[in-house]
Amino acid sequence: MKTRITEMLGIETPIICGGMMRVGTAELAAAASNAGALGVMTALTQPTLEGLEAEIEKCRSLTDKPFAVNLTVGVVATEINYDDYVDVICRSGVKIVETAGRSPEPFMDAFKAHGIKVIHKCVAVRHALKSERIGVDVVSIDGFECAGHPGEADVGGLVLFPAAAQALKIPVVASGGIADARGLVAALALGAEGINMGSRFMVTQEAPIHEGIKQKIVEMDETQTRLIFRSYRNTARVYKNSIADKVAEIEAAGGDFGQVHHLVSGQNQEKAWSTGDIEAGMVTVGMCGGLINDIPTCKELIHNIMSEADQIINDRFASMMTG
Amino acid sequence: MKTRITEMLGIETPIICGGMMRVGTAELAAAASNAGALGVMTALTQPTLEGLEAEIEKCRSLTDKPFAVNLTVGVVATEINYDDYVDVICRSGVKIVETAGRSPEPFMDAFKAHGIKVIHKCVAVRHALKSERIGVDVVSIDGFECAGHPGEADVGGLVLFPAAAQALKIPVVASGGIADARGLVAALALGAEGINMGSRFMVTQEAPIHEGIKQKIVEMDETQTRLIFRSYRNTARVYKNSIADKVAEIEAAGGDFGQVHHLVSGQNQEKAWSTGDIEAGMVTVGMCGGLINDIPTCKELIHNIMSEADQIINDRFASMMTG
Repeated sequence: MKTRITEMLGIETPIICGGMMRVGTAELAAAASNAGALGVMTALTQPTLEGLEAEIEKCRSLTDKPFAVNLTVGVVATEINYDDYVDVICRSGVKIVETAGRSPEPFMDAFKAHGIKVIHKCVAVRHALKSERIGVDVVSIDGFECAGHPGEADVGGLVLFPAAAQALKIPVVASGGIADARGLVAALALGAEGINMGSRFMVTQEAPIHEGIKQKIVEMDETQTRLIFRSYRNTARVYKNSIADKVAEIEAAGGDFGQVHHLVSGQNQEKAWSTGDIEAGMVTVGMCGGLINDIPTCKELIHNIMSEADQIINDRFASMMTG
Repeated sequence: MKTRITEMLGIETPIICGGMMRVGTAELAAAASNAGALGVMTALTQPTLEGLEAEIEKCRSLTDKPFAVNLTVGVVATEINYDDYVDVICRSGVKIVETAGRSPEPFMDAFKAHGIKVIHKCVAVRHALKSERIGVDVVSIDGFECAGHPGEADVGGLVLFPAAAQALKIPVVASGGIADARGLVAALALGAEGINMGSRFMVTQEAPIHEGIKQKIVEMDETQTRLIFRSYRNTARVYKNSIADKVAEIEAAGGDFGQVHHLVSGQNQEKAWSTGDIEAGMVTVGMCGGLINDIPTCKELIHNIMSEADQIINDRFASMMTG
């Protein structure tokens, strides 16, 4: 398939493997890229600059296809020198960066000087327009359905994707609520030039999380996520487990972030990922978990999506049109 | 275009004009039907049974195409004898009914005895499955983006439509967040067999509401709706005006429905519709108001949607597929 995104990024399919903290390793990114999608490694998953350098090198050793590095700015509690991370990314020879969180404006000169294409992830049309003005190449727009941080405006992808696509000149990637060919074709119909999938790539053979968590996502339905952190204006969509319910309860009682912090700690999240106990920590997943029913390899996943997209367009639509 | 819905209902396009209280008159329904969509009159917009009988007769005099009557059960405060309404509808010779609110189970025998096809509108997959079991012919599933009552589970159409379509054997109509050809093609990709549009039909020449309200919807963006009545478990999406903000404020302070009732009265709503003052009452509209930019006739609207859908499928997709 050929869209403005595949042409610009040099990838075979208009599919991006969303940058996921603690999940976006070299192995997963390389597997996604080898399958014809754009794999994305998350820079902050590596605790040191040397670690990031090595992880990028590792990804390059695993694939000769394009891959990207995600840099999420300003949403992690620990002190991070982003300039140093940007410097490592620029020197590494990586040609595509996905930014998220705060505006990538402070880093745009460095990225551009190194010929890096910048995909900026945001959740509102006005942020997307600002990103376009500062020179990002692609906007990846996250709707209400997404895992992680959908923002505070709660606009579903069905409305947000076309609103963004018609407002911007640069290509738009649809993110949130998409897990299969149906979502891909819908996003392309709505004006997007590609899709970003996170939860779907979490439930692949190559994702570095415990099989037990993958299985829980296979079993969940579309109603089993919930929003937390709204009272802190940092809304997050997570799996509806007892920890999420407890956080929501504390928030409803007016509790501040200090009172929920221990519940949602990275340590607890790691524990869930590594033990497969979905009640052990906060698990970030989108409502499209309800559409995920298998645990394929990245190669199988991308192959199936493209083959089913072909069926939707060339069989389903064709029969409706000629009817 | 030919889908399971167009075949079953005998309509030219897979588009339904949503049943709208106070807006779904014979004139609007007939205009939608004459344009090739399925027009829907709302039974309860008529204050008496005789009024409904006359309105159905009027609609029949204005179109020889199929149209439907909407019966919304159990969500209006006043005492209504639904059996009497059902009786009038059955005797009128109408062949399609759209039900909403409570389950249509008590009326299914009467509808079926009169050869009436039943489209039931609901907001969750489990309600849709129950509707299928009791014999409804079509489920119209309303996502989070919709105007009016999206339910309490907040599942965006991007996920809810495919979840419903894969769970049901009967055809699914996608409702909420759709205002144009992009939404139509997206819904068909997601597995729906047609779309339901309310807000979009409100902003047509034939809709019996003041030009000033239509103009405000043309001007709004996708962030200018808000949810109210969540604390009463009767969530409604409405235009974000000072009345909606005041209701939300009272709810946040723990106020009961008695305290907001005067603000959202039918009288105030009528005032907004009739004077064009969007601050005069609660105005029911969906976030796809942000995608609406003109006030066409129903005929122009349907023509444009079908022609643009053809472009998306035969030009945009074809060029992506052939590369």
